[in-house]
Amino acid sequence: MSETNSVFIGKKPVMNYVLACLTLFQNGSELVTIKARGRAISKAVDVAQIAMKRFATGIKVKDININTEQVKSNETGNINNVSSIEIYLSK
Amino acid sequence: MSETNSVFIGKKPVMNYVLACLTLFQNGSELVTIKARGRAISKAVDVAQIAMKRFATGIKVKDININTEQVKSNETGNINNVSSIEIYLSK
Repeated sequence: MSETNSVFIGKKPVMNYVLACLTLFQNGSELVTIKARGRAISKAVDVAQIAMKRFATGIKVKDININTEQVKSNETGNINNVSSIEIYLSK
Repeated sequence: MSETNSVFIGKKPVMNYVLACLTLFQNGSELVTIKARGRAISKAVDVAQIAMKRFATGIKVKDININTEQVKSNETGNINNVSSIEIYLSK
């Protein structure tokens, strides 16, 4: 019951990811990690805030990490640095 | 020397804010706070990562907070919830 479950933030609507988080908690997860890169970082924060505040279910932010990842561009083959975030939610 | 100094992230290029942070540290600050709301949150993480990694100056992330702020729209007068982030950098 203590394994880590992750939700990767992409281009879908915010509510999809909020529901994904809430479902993981509902299914017995105690720690859910929201991960995002680049422009999706803002959306990751939205997801965490909505999961915590609108659905007042005792979910809290346990920790937040930021980092830099190297991403190879498919078009140019260049390696770019992209910021990333990991938001750890616990119940 | 221990007062908190803040850098608010807006629409300027990332490097402007990186330089603002580095200047604050150079002038003797021990704690610099990067603040951003909404879409600028991704840029705030970029600023923190560049200040830490590209300019290897011993700057570290001390803490990160995320929150929700109520912003009143100038156009419609509606109150919107906007996510915000505070990244605390220390030397």
